[in-house]
Amino acid sequence: MESIPTGIDSIIYFRVMSKPTKVTIQDIARFAGVGVGTVSRVLNGHPNVSPETEANVRKAIEALGYRPVVAAQTLRTRRSNVIGFITDEIATSPHAGQIIRGAQEAAWKGGKILLLVNTQWDPELEQAAVETMIDRQVDGLIYATMYHRPVTPPEIMRQIPSVLLDCFTEDASLPSVVPDEFNGGYEATKLLIERGHQRIGFINNTDPIPAQRLRMKGYCAALESYDLPFDEALVVERKSEPKGGYDGMMVLLDLPDPPSAVFCFNDRMAMGAYDAIRQRGFRIPQDIAVIGFDNQELIAANLYPGLTTMQLPHYEMGIWAVEYLLSMLETSEKDDFKQECSPPQVQLKCPLVLRDSV
Amino acid sequence: MESIPTGIDSIIYFRVMSKPTKVTIQDIARFAGVGVGTVSRVLNGHPNVSPETEANVRKAIEALGYRPVVAAQTLRTRRSNVIGFITDEIATSPHAGQIIRGAQEAAWKGGKILLLVNTQWDPELEQAAVETMIDRQVDGLIYATMYHRPVTPPEIMRQIPSVLLDCFTEDASLPSVVPDEFNGGYEATKLLIERGHQRIGFINNTDPIPAQRLRMKGYCAALESYDLPFDEALVVERKSEPKGGYDGMMVLLDLPDPPSAVFCFNDRMAMGAYDAIRQRGFRIPQDIAVIGFDNQELIAANLYPGLTTMQLPHYEMGIWAVEYLLSMLETSEKDDFKQECSPPQVQLKCPLVLRDSV
Repeated sequence: MESIPTGIDSIIYFRVMSKPTKVTIQDIARFAGVGVGTVSRVLNGHPNVSPETEANVRKAIEALGYRPVVAAQTLRTRRSNVIGFITDEIATSPHAGQIIRGAQEAAWKGGKILLLVNTQWDPELEQAAVETMIDRQVDGLIYATMYHRPVTPPEIMRQIPSVLLDCFTEDASLPSVVPDEFNGGYEATKLLIERGHQRIGFINNTDPIPAQRLRMKGYCAALESYDLPFDEALVVERKSEPKGGYDGMMVLLDLPDPPSAVFCFNDRMAMGAYDAIRQRGFRIPQDIAVIGFDNQELIAANLYPGLTTMQLPHYEMGIWAVEYLLSMLETSEKDDFKQECSPPQVQLKCPLVLRDSV
Repeated sequence: MESIPTGIDSIIYFRVMSKPTKVTIQDIARFAGVGVGTVSRVLNGHPNVSPETEANVRKAIEALGYRPVVAAQTLRTRRSNVIGFITDEIATSPHAGQIIRGAQEAAWKGGKILLLVNTQWDPELEQAAVETMIDRQVDGLIYATMYHRPVTPPEIMRQIPSVLLDCFTEDASLPSVVPDEFNGGYEATKLLIERGHQRIGFINNTDPIPAQRLRMKGYCAALESYDLPFDEALVVERKSEPKGGYDGMMVLLDLPDPPSAVFCFNDRMAMGAYDAIRQRGFRIPQDIAVIGFDNQELIAANLYPGLTTMQLPHYEMGIWAVEYLLSMLETSEKDDFKQECSPPQVQLKCPLVLRDSV
């Protein structure tokens, strides 16, 4: 008979062993010809095990397909190597999936698994999701939104390292990464100006969200940089969908002095603007140049001609959020986490994607 | 001094209590004016606690914001109320997010949280994800793919209740739900026939996937039902993207006797077919009727005219998979799970979505 481990290990392992259908560490011990305590020491990475013994135990673990009860392991090590990812609807909407891809790749590269919960804007589910994550001892949390907006995340998130992705708190009390909307609006308008356009329309969104306000500011700043006058007749606001783009474009085309180029709030509005321009018999880009925003591949790459647009840095924001979280984990003790005084509020550039519409 | 719990509870709770920054059950006990053992009994749902005492303890738990260490609770109760959801890329691609929405809503309705891992087709990550889920004692697993295809899921999944979503194993050894591709192809073709078309083109995909083969079978069966001849010149295969649809449509339009209607393998191909039809100066649907497949809202609803299409039952498949999993959980003991001999292989209908292109 092998020696029996003592203390919490023995109790937890007896529980493991009491499961009738699964491989137990007793099986491992028998297979490897060692004591249960030795198996326990190998599983817990204790130093006083000879390399040969450890190799034997590991071989047995692999051969029998043993799976330790991680609940027990987590209690002991207090590190789960899991990052929680809570989102309103990124996983279910077609808009921002690259956020998850960036976050997931960065997490996996850092040896972490990214566990997602998609709450579909249900605050009760959101609260339960964050609690489930924390109860499962995730090392940290990412809180990500489908579009750039201010948020009030569940308070309990502040107990562990957490990063906001594509959103921010008004008081800047949590680390955050969002797109640089102002610069995106500026660069889109600048491109049109540099291609020789002087009268540039802007079909903006009606929703009072940061993107709406800041892209408009960028549009104005670019005009000012090039000493072009601002003409309020050239700015129309519509619902941010193809129909809104279509209607807005019709208004611009009906002006006595219509624009020769148009900046659309997003690619979906640009899709509608395309229809309006073609219906009036104009060509893109020869008669009217069009630039969008988002680089929503399904639309931008598939329109004819291909839509020039500003890319939302979804993938890059996903990477940034996870990498910053990993750096927080490196510099903080799990059981003694303290929020930073001035956590970073990062804005990432929206790169220009040139196709054929400008 | 309160009485001290014994056995594994005491050890686990001492570990909880040793965490310096969190509320402990000692705090709860002090606040509620009861013993730690009483708190433990309330937390574990033991029967011999008076209702008033339980109410006091629950009040204290709420007031202090106590969070039990679920790792310990899971060891004891062996139910986590968490369902794992493993997918290749549903969460990151714009195609099938409604699968997640359906699954998530059904899970939440059943009192479960859906934890997702998006593996981005990485088999190593997939294996780690399934192991992470099982280690965290999920009650069951959903294994979901971005499009309908045969799969070889990690063997370890068979240890716990698992359902395949939008995929299947060749040997039908796990419960599975997929779209009824044959019926979808049949109904799409039937609609065109009933609107009076006799020469109906089919722009199919080149990938040898179930959807390609079965929609073709449905197309043929519908022609046969209505005694229409099958003309192989009317079937072209191209890459399943707008360019493929454009090229395929051009081939059909160049026939000596071109079709008056076309069934496109998916909405993206239909988007390209639209461009070809318009470029040749034909009108949709007056000159050429078009029907797609998928009901990818971003395309189908936003094309002009709106695209009539067959909807992939993503949302419904998500619901079915979770509801079936919940029924498996109800009828099996967690530690004595056995696979069914002939698990259901379900096909869900693809409903017709009428817009203006037919």
